[in-house]
Amino acid sequence: MELLKNKIREEGLVLSDAVLKVDSFLNHQVDPDLMKEIGKEFAEKFAAEKVTKILTLESSGISPALMTALELHVSVIFARKRKSLTLNDNVYVANVRSFTKGETNEVTVSKSFINKEDRVLIIDDFLANGQAAEGLIHIIEQAGAALAGVGIVIEKSFQPGGKELRDRGIRVESLARIQALENGKVQFLEEAFQA
Amino acid sequence: MELLKNKIREEGLVLSDAVLKVDSFLNHQVDPDLMKEIGKEFAEKFAAEKVTKILTLESSGISPALMTALELHVSVIFARKRKSLTLNDNVYVANVRSFTKGETNEVTVSKSFINKEDRVLIIDDFLANGQAAEGLIHIIEQAGAALAGVGIVIEKSFQPGGKELRDRGIRVESLARIQALENGKVQFLEEAFQA
Repeated sequence: MELLKNKIREEGLVLSDAVLKVDSFLNHQVDPDLMKEIGKEFAEKFAAEKVTKILTLESSGISPALMTALELHVSVIFARKRKSLTLNDNVYVANVRSFTKGETNEVTVSKSFINKEDRVLIIDDFLANGQAAEGLIHIIEQAGAALAGVGIVIEKSFQPGGKELRDRGIRVESLARIQALENGKVQFLEEAFQA
Repeated sequence: MELLKNKIREEGLVLSDAVLKVDSFLNHQVDPDLMKEIGKEFAEKFAAEKVTKILTLESSGISPALMTALELHVSVIFARKRKSLTLNDNVYVANVRSFTKGETNEVTVSKSFINKEDRVLIIDDFLANGQAAEGLIHIIEQAGAALAGVGIVIEKSFQPGGKELRDRGIRVESLARIQALENGKVQFLEEAFQA
């Protein structure tokens, strides 16, 4: 998605060979017009998948997931990283290790919102080692629902998450795939193929 | 906002005289079409306020804030409840006590995203004791920015937050104001006035 890649080129900060900071439009400050285009793009890619629910993980996944949900006119559920006192125990649970935060969270989804009739599309901001996606897939499995696919805003293709999911036959659509973050520069996968 | 009040009547769960659970469309599962209408409503109410940024608090504030931002074509910033390893220390900090979760969080906003030229609109899902709004106002003050107002999806008017903010001359617009949650029923403020 060229609009997204340009935004990453202009505003992305390469903090190390593994960490790209996109706080100015995705992870802290959010550009709503860009999110709307991202939502349209995901909705188009997964149009044939008969999606009934979108599942994401708080907090950075919410914006792209909500905009995709708006296009597909389905509800979005954000898995929570801790149990709230206003959420009862009737929940699906999975463990997710955060690459950037270096911590493991228990993520929960109320059993009320996903059931075996659902076809669930996972949307998330980043795919690196695939821990978040694996946790959300585990929740979909517990619900007996079908996985419609995984939509990712930015995939770090030099980390194994994307390959592992695709090797299992899961449809993964990433709007920007990064091959490397070497020497403070973002190198996209497509550019490498064209070179 | 009648659409919102009907949704609260139909799907809100009164857990106690103080706690209303709206997990099915706002705090866990999100109805994107309702959020879009909420965004339009806030954008209309604050249309004259020359808003340059929207500020909210992760996670439940993000959906209504993003939809308002989309209407006003300004960026939305979500204050974070913990520091991420990819966020540096150049941040504004405030303490926020959560009524429902019974815990105090340090919330942070990067100094890059709000400055003294900004007119900031706060959007949040709930207003009860006003702790979240106070924390966000404290961040806006630190930035030297102007507060354009506070937009709340659901105000619990039987708790003091809304009155305290209005008494200080702050414009607070709540789309649904709840007067009481007694006997498992939601009683809206307007209904009481009309009786």
